[in-house]
Amino acid sequence: MARPLEFWFDFASTYSYIAVMRIERLCAAAGVPLVWKPFLLGPIFALQGWNDSHFNLNERRGNYMWRDLERLTAKFGLPWQRPSKFPRLSTAPARVAAAHSEEVWCGDFIRAVFVANFGEDRDIADPAVVHDILRALALPADEIVARAESAERRGQLRANTDWAIRFGLFGAPNCLIREELFWGEETLEDAVAWAQRD
Amino acid sequence: MARPLEFWFDFASTYSYIAVMRIERLCAAAGVPLVWKPFLLGPIFALQGWNDSHFNLNERRGNYMWRDLERLTAKFGLPWQRPSKFPRLSTAPARVAAAHSEEVWCGDFIRAVFVANFGEDRDIADPAVVHDILRALALPADEIVARAESAERRGQLRANTDWAIRFGLFGAPNCLIREELFWGEETLEDAVAWAQRD
Repeated sequence: MARPLEFWFDFASTYSYIAVMRIERLCAAAGVPLVWKPFLLGPIFALQGWNDSHFNLNERRGNYMWRDLERLTAKFGLPWQRPSKFPRLSTAPARVAAAHSEEVWCGDFIRAVFVANFGEDRDIADPAVVHDILRALALPADEIVARAESAERRGQLRANTDWAIRFGLFGAPNCLIREELFWGEETLEDAVAWAQRD
Repeated sequence: MARPLEFWFDFASTYSYIAVMRIERLCAAAGVPLVWKPFLLGPIFALQGWNDSHFNLNERRGNYMWRDLERLTAKFGLPWQRPSKFPRLSTAPARVAAAHSEEVWCGDFIRAVFVANFGEDRDIADPAVVHDILRALALPADEIVARAESAERRGQLRANTDWAIRFGLFGAPNCLIREELFWGEETLEDAVAWAQRD
């Protein structure tokens, strides 16, 4: 019996884009239950003393990341357009995803937001863009956004982020199988194999 | 006709260990010429404002790296013993490797130094340890060390490090095919494929 794999990601994170487009299919093929865990990297980077993405703070590292993303999106056949703003505030889509992580459409929504950010250079920080993405998936956008903002569910994103801080996440994407952490887009296969045999 | 692949590494670097144990076989199987390029990360980290490995400066990131190394060495069947000192000064073995990068035995020497550091917890900063490693490979250790310290060849390591700074390397290991950089142990297959088709 495979263990569930928790996928911890931030909509602003470039390498989360590569991973998020592949993880649901990999888990399904391996019979591993997938649990979506959106969180915010901003508070974690702040704890590490950074006031921005380290890709912006370290120019050499940042230049390499953008080139790497060109190669990786080509390798996996993913849409790619370097965003005109990076990182984008991801609170609006993350709140929707965190409040609906168990819905069957959540994977489609998550992937559509990442494609909007990194394939189409759309401003996912804008609630109107999030609304449009939901509608384009033929989902009841008003109802979903209202539920994400409700007193009952609004705190889920904060709860995820607080948990990530306590556990000690330091970046994204992450696969977590019980206490076993796999960080980075290149670890997906190893993480899924771990969940299968654990 | 495949392009040469330059493999830029530091003997102190944990992820260089994983990569160095695999790269020669991967290149040989693909018909890609391999060029060894030892260099020192210390001056590059200093330029980034670090006075130590970022794995020591960022505890969460460091803890993850050590766990990751356990898993990766198990995955690839490599000897593993967490070194009692990290990072170790790598100048002594790097000077030998840089001065002899075109010798047919250089790959064997490089791998033996990495196994000493990360598989046997031996102090590779100690010239006597480097001497022992050469002798254990049935090589003329005195002659080799003398050549590495000679006026003619002693500067090769510094020249490599200066080149790495000018090019903009920011970590290790790296595969470089002309100007195309692949950083990290997980990029070896992509780098070799790039060299094959370039």
